[in-house]
Amino acid sequence: MVETSRNALSALRETHEDRVLGLLRTHGALSRADLARRTGLSRATLSTIVNRLISIDAVTASAGEDSPARGRGRPPTLLTLNPAGGLALGIDLGHRRIHASIANVAHDVIATASMGCDEDAPWHQRVEEALAMVDTMCARQHISLAALDGVGVGVVGPVAETGVVPAGPDADSAAVVHRLVTEHLGVPAQVDNNTRLAALAETIWGAGTGSQNVLYVHLSYGVGGGLVLGGHLFSGAFGAAAEIGHVSVDPGGPACACGGRGCLERSVSIDAIIARCRARDLDDVLARMHQNDHHVHDVIRDAGRQLGGVVAAACNIVNPEAVVVGGELSAAGDPLLEPVREALATYTHQRVHQNLAVRPATLADGGAALGGIALILRRSTLLAGYPALQEPRNHLEHGPQTETEGGVVEHG
Amino acid sequence: MVETSRNALSALRETHEDRVLGLLRTHGALSRADLARRTGLSRATLSTIVNRLISIDAVTASAGEDSPARGRGRPPTLLTLNPAGGLALGIDLGHRRIHASIANVAHDVIATASMGCDEDAPWHQRVEEALAMVDTMCARQHISLAALDGVGVGVVGPVAETGVVPAGPDADSAAVVHRLVTEHLGVPAQVDNNTRLAALAETIWGAGTGSQNVLYVHLSYGVGGGLVLGGHLFSGAFGAAAEIGHVSVDPGGPACACGGRGCLERSVSIDAIIARCRARDLDDVLARMHQNDHHVHDVIRDAGRQLGGVVAAACNIVNPEAVVVGGELSAAGDPLLEPVREALATYTHQRVHQNLAVRPATLADGGAALGGIALILRRSTLLAGYPALQEPRNHLEHGPQTETEGGVVEHG
Repeated sequence: MVETSRNALSALRETHEDRVLGLLRTHGALSRADLARRTGLSRATLSTIVNRLISIDAVTASAGEDSPARGRGRPPTLLTLNPAGGLALGIDLGHRRIHASIANVAHDVIATASMGCDEDAPWHQRVEEALAMVDTMCARQHISLAALDGVGVGVVGPVAETGVVPAGPDADSAAVVHRLVTEHLGVPAQVDNNTRLAALAETIWGAGTGSQNVLYVHLSYGVGGGLVLGGHLFSGAFGAAAEIGHVSVDPGGPACACGGRGCLERSVSIDAIIARCRARDLDDVLARMHQNDHHVHDVIRDAGRQLGGVVAAACNIVNPEAVVVGGELSAAGDPLLEPVREALATYTHQRVHQNLAVRPATLADGGAALGGIALILRRSTLLAGYPALQEPRNHLEHGPQTETEGGVVEHG
Repeated sequence: MVETSRNALSALRETHEDRVLGLLRTHGALSRADLARRTGLSRATLSTIVNRLISIDAVTASAGEDSPARGRGRPPTLLTLNPAGGLALGIDLGHRRIHASIANVAHDVIATASMGCDEDAPWHQRVEEALAMVDTMCARQHISLAALDGVGVGVVGPVAETGVVPAGPDADSAAVVHRLVTEHLGVPAQVDNNTRLAALAETIWGAGTGSQNVLYVHLSYGVGGGLVLGGHLFSGAFGAAAEIGHVSVDPGGPACACGGRGCLERSVSIDAIIARCRARDLDDVLARMHQNDHHVHDVIRDAGRQLGGVVAAACNIVNPEAVVVGGELSAAGDPLLEPVREALATYTHQRVHQNLAVRPATLADGGAALGGIALILRRSTLLAGYPALQEPRNHLEHGPQTETEGGVVEHG
């Protein structure tokens, strides 16, 4: 009995250790107080576990930064996974640029690089260029990829399920990218839409930090979006969640290539704004906006109102804590975002708008590559940390599973 | 070493057993093949586990129903939790009626009852009446509540987090109901919005069976909704997800009590339809619709178009597999639903509409009480089955947790 109890205790401790390691892997740096709150363990139990993890070099303790909000007292010690424990690589294969970033399991971004690319380049060429850039970056900064845990790659276009190749005309990019990256790097790869990865990155390192439920809107040559719900990317049943650019704002409007009609994208994309402003390019639009050109201001405000109407409908459906607006057009700032805030205040339920923040994105171009890193750091926790639980934990993914019809027997 | 291995194996087997029990608790009846697919365990390992669970009376095996789709061969044996293992009670405290249902852990509904109630009755009176009705139902059908695992209660109005009392003007109902029910029954209670519970029930026992991502629309004296994402209820950050009735369809329209303007609810609620049809009541509307009254058809079709525009926007955001339309007004059937289907085909991205079904709800009035049962059967799996994982598994709930800012260090 003693032997059994000791083994049971040991098994229990290992479960708690897994839990602590999983939380640090997902969240980066946490204090002992954070860990106690999130695990529900007593300070004493947690202390034993943390001390053991530090003694075996799995976890590293460092002094936190002084926070002005704290006022007095020394800042709490922050715990992270040992930065030497592993690396995650994020790559964004955008229309015109390729970005790459590497972070360690402590969530420190240790290298980033980017390069232009031909927007007509086929996918295998983009991947080759990206991998060559990663090799150069690693050589220059003496980073060995021997400790690479995985790579998260952003691509243009819809991807139905993270890392799984979708059917249909968009299948090629995700399939080719997944195969080439896996072959070259020899680690697990996950491929997702790059706008969606930018959304995830904004909730961890950017304007949505601290929020678990974020609607991300990407205003560029197209209008896209991403949904983070409960801290995790939500792709929708068929990879088309947050298609904010294809919500109709004009029932009698022209047909769109997406299969819809009167889509928002037709009035608030960069090209639409340039055309309506009769400007040379986006820089010209923004320069004239800063010079208080009335016509440009009217165009931007009108675009903000149209966007705001759609964002208001979306927020009535998903009730997020924050709307984060990214993409090149978000550089227009408040002249664009104020009408969005006004639309939210006017056209949503008070429970939806009373605690809702609308913020410009802060990660700019490199966001999607960081999102690829987050996919590896977070998904690894979900899928690898508790392998026995892959299916029921996989809340937000679409799978082929079907519910069994419970035999409903009605009695008076 | 041998001792350790044996204990490790025993611990592993217990984890697998927990997993099998959890799946049966969530899904009701499953075949061995279903379990093998969902757990990823080999048939041999699974067989050992299932036989042990049957030998200790935790699991019951019974012949499945013959399925015409199967063609030939004997139907597979279905496994459920032992029906004697526990009961879940669902109560719906609606505006005008109170419903209650009891199911066992094998997902068989063994008793239901309902009664009218005064729509001005305060919450404590509704709860007392509901509990008296449950007592009578149990006495009449010789059901002992000694084995009751929990009770799920539906209330009118928003509830921010399942079972947790929200702040604000809506706090009273959920708080009072939770306290009274817990005190009387002495088991854990969970309180949620009854429209949301109807949505959950439709995905398990009703028109959304087999779908993991469902938008439920409830057309009654108000217009509400519910979102099931990844098989679980999604409440939004502040309990206001799926506020489909408060999406604006008329930017210059009248202010609504919700804080918005031009809300859909003003044109497609029962009262609005009755008024526009110049009818006595909903029965009169439906009777005239069946007599092919042109004006009534026009009104219904117009309501369907307005609803369709909002549902199309919602589907572009959450990309569900099914839209289920319930509430008294859904009795209008295809004259109401066809314009919704047309709007989806016209105004959503093709990836959103190509596999999207729009179906009338099938559970009618008793749906929310069944949803209360589902809340207990499903949440128990999530929260009790794997207690070490409560927080990170709790994807879809809003909690006070905040993300740690990962120290982003940019290097060239």
